[in-house]
Formats: sequence, C-alpha cells, structure tokens
Amino acid sequence: MADEVVLLDFWPSLFGMRLRIALAEKGIKHEYKEEDLKNKSPLLLKSNPVHKKIPVLIHNGKPVSESLIALQYIDETWNDNAPLLPSDPYLRSQARFWAEFVDKKVADFGRKVCMTKGEEQEAAKNGLLDCIELLEGELGEKPYFGGETLGFVDVTLVPSYGWLSVYEKFGNFSIEAEHPVFIAWGKRCMQKKSVSKSLPDQQKLYDFVVQFMEKA
Amino acid sequence: MADEVVLLDFWPSLFGMRLRIALAEKGIKHEYKEEDLKNKSPLLLKSNPVHKKIPVLIHNGKPVSESLIALQYIDETWNDNAPLLPSDPYLRSQARFWAEFVDKKVADFGRKVCMTKGEEQEAAKNGLLDCIELLEGELGEKPYFGGETLGFVDVTLVPSYGWLSVYEKFGNFSIEAEHPVFIAWGKRCMQKKSVSKSLPDQQKLYDFVVQFMEKA
Repeated sequence: MADEVVLLDFWPSLFGMRLRIALAEKGIKHEYKEEDLKNKSPLLLKSNPVHKKIPVLIHNGKPVSESLIALQYIDETWNDNAPLLPSDPYLRSQARFWAEFVDKKVADFGRKVCMTKGEEQEAAKNGLLDCIELLEGELGEKPYFGGETLGFVDVTLVPSYGWLSVYEKFGNFSIEAEHPVFIAWGKRCMQKKSVSKSLPDQQKLYDFVVQFMEKA
Repeated sequence: MADEVVLLDFWPSLFGMRLRIALAEKGIKHEYKEEDLKNKSPLLLKSNPVHKKIPVLIHNGKPVSESLIALQYIDETWNDNAPLLPSDPYLRSQARFWAEFVDKKVADFGRKVCMTKGEEQEAAKNGLLDCIELLEGELGEKPYFGGETLGFVDVTLVPSYGWLSVYEKFGNFSIEAEHPVFIAWGKRCMQKKSVSKSLPDQQKLYDFVVQFMEKA
C-alpha cells in the first residue's frame, strides 16, 4: 500500500511551514489541506482533540500533532534520505535543545513584536535580538545548524526568518543591520527549493497580520 | 574509560526527579550534586548558560539540559536495558506528545494551585483535574503509560504524583476522590524502587513550599 500522507495546515503558520519543508526535503508526496481556524474541520478536531491546533500530519490515518514531534516522526519514518537529526545521541540532544529554544522563545517574541506596543514591544524586540545572537553563536562557522546540510534546527528556525520583514515593519527596527550572520544563514536556506517553496511571500504575511489586527 | 555521570539537581524539583528515576531504572551510577538556586554553582552556569536551570546531566564532561531532552539522551545512550521510549516511530510520537503535555500543563497548574488564590487558584485546580482526566483516558486499561513497563510518560508524570498531597493541601480539594484510576497508577509506580527512592517525602515538600512562600 502506498503511504497516504495528509497535512492539516494554515498558510501563515510558522509551525506548519516546518512540516512543509521537512516533507519537501524528504520528497514525501502528500495532500495539503488548508484549515479555516475560525471554523475548524471535523478532521482537525478529531485528529488533535487535546490542542485542536494545526499543524497535524496524518500518516495512513494516524495523526501526529505538535510540530517538533511531527518533524521527528517524519525523520524516523522516512529515514532513508535527508536526515534531520544526527545519529550521535549527544548531537541529537543538542539539536533538540536548540529546536526547543526556538520553539519556546523566538516565535513568542516575534508575535509580541507584532501584537504589542510601547515597553512590552521594546522588551520583545530585545528578546528577539538576544535569541538571534545566541543562535548565531550556536551556528558558528557552519553553513547550517545541521552542519553541511539542512538539519532539525534549521527546519525549526527558518520559518521565523520567513517572518522577519514582518517583525521589522511592526517593530520599526532592522535585524539585518545587527545580525548579518543570521541573515546570511537565512538566505542560504532560501536557496533550497524545499524552503523557498514552503514559505509564503513576506508582503502577503504582513497584509495578513494587518488584517488580523483590524478585526481583533 | 568508565562513564562519568553527574546530575546537577535540586531536591524538590519535579524535573530533576525525572532524571533521578531514569538513572535509577537504568542502573547508571552517578554523582548527585545539590544546587543552591540562590547561589548557583559555576558548574551549573557553565553547563546551562542559556537557561541557567537544573536539572543538568553531565556525561563525560558534556552537559545535557532540559529534562525531557536529557531523558531521551539517557534512553538513547544506555539503550541496552529498561527502554523508556518504544521502538515504533508512531508510538514514540505519541509518548512524546503526552510527555510534552505533562511538561507544559501539569507542572504549571500545580504551581499555580500552590501560589495563587481565589479565581486564579480555582482555574488552576480545574485545569489540573482536566489534565488528569485526559491522562486517565490515555492510560486506559494499561498498568503504565509505557504498557507493561514504566515508560517515557510515566517517568515524566510520576514526579507530579509525588507533589499531589501538596497540591491537595494548598487547593483544599481531593484529587483522589475524583480520579481513583490516576491514584492507582501512581501507587503502582511507587512500588518501584527507582521511583520511590527518587521522590522526596510529601510533608517535606509541603514544608518547603510554605517556607518558600513566607520568604517570597
């Protein structure tokens, strides 16, 4: 039986983008189903009854939710090409550490840069810049966090790079000026089709947030 | 060379307890170093410069922080006995899902039951009870979340069972009355020496929180 793979997603979601990139990197054919988050599908509610959130990967009818967990599932299930996690247990632990760091911190600061004002926004901007500095330290001289190839941390982080110009516009600051190493890494990732095809246009993302906030 | 394993920990920490249990289950000899969180050791600050938090596992000089990541490191490194995660990728994803659920929700609600009053405390009590109900559903008829043996979710969750009487005293409610299945599971886990030896006395925990709040 051929694998039946379905991705329940929402196009601006940086969590969803992670799975789009991983599926593209591994060349896994799948059906993409766009969710309307104001009117969630019965399939989403059934597949992720605890959190009721996208993204959900459904493989032969069995759902996996939470983006970092689904990334690991993809990596373990389709393990014959484009490995995301290294095979050495210590290097795996470090990749998981930085992916968790991105998951807990970067997205949250980014959201607050868009959604808050004044002191709270200032703190979020500084928080985001501090995260990028730490991540640059971890990247070091390597082309990717994964070494010579795109890895678990790259796939987890690059969707936030895809949101960067949105953060810059809302925060009225320049990340590029202060963090050229991070920007060079992002551009390197974007040269991969698996990445560039999985991230939406930044102007479209900006318009989406503006529209979202007008309705809020 | 024999493995040199050090655990930087703080006795009331339910995150630290997870690693104590895993090390005991696998029979890994290690040096336990108690941290003074008001005066953190240079070793802790050097080993976990990003979060500066316990627990940290140091294996032959290399540090792993974040309890769920360290649990996976232990499981992958000492993989010849007492496996915590199942070998099937789908079952692994589900174990990770529930461990993350415990990590994000249960500890936080528990803390709020102790530290807040009024409506906020009421919400935390209900949140904790809802979590336990969902976890009972996942446990089903199995003796452990890991099936016939203690697994990743059991090791992640049972420290919260060790805090239960503290939550009950502060919240003035009975979890036992409403969730006998959860209590039976906790008692089953406590019959294992790896668990009972890793969890502190509940009265000692209660006194610790009372003292902590008096100073706060």
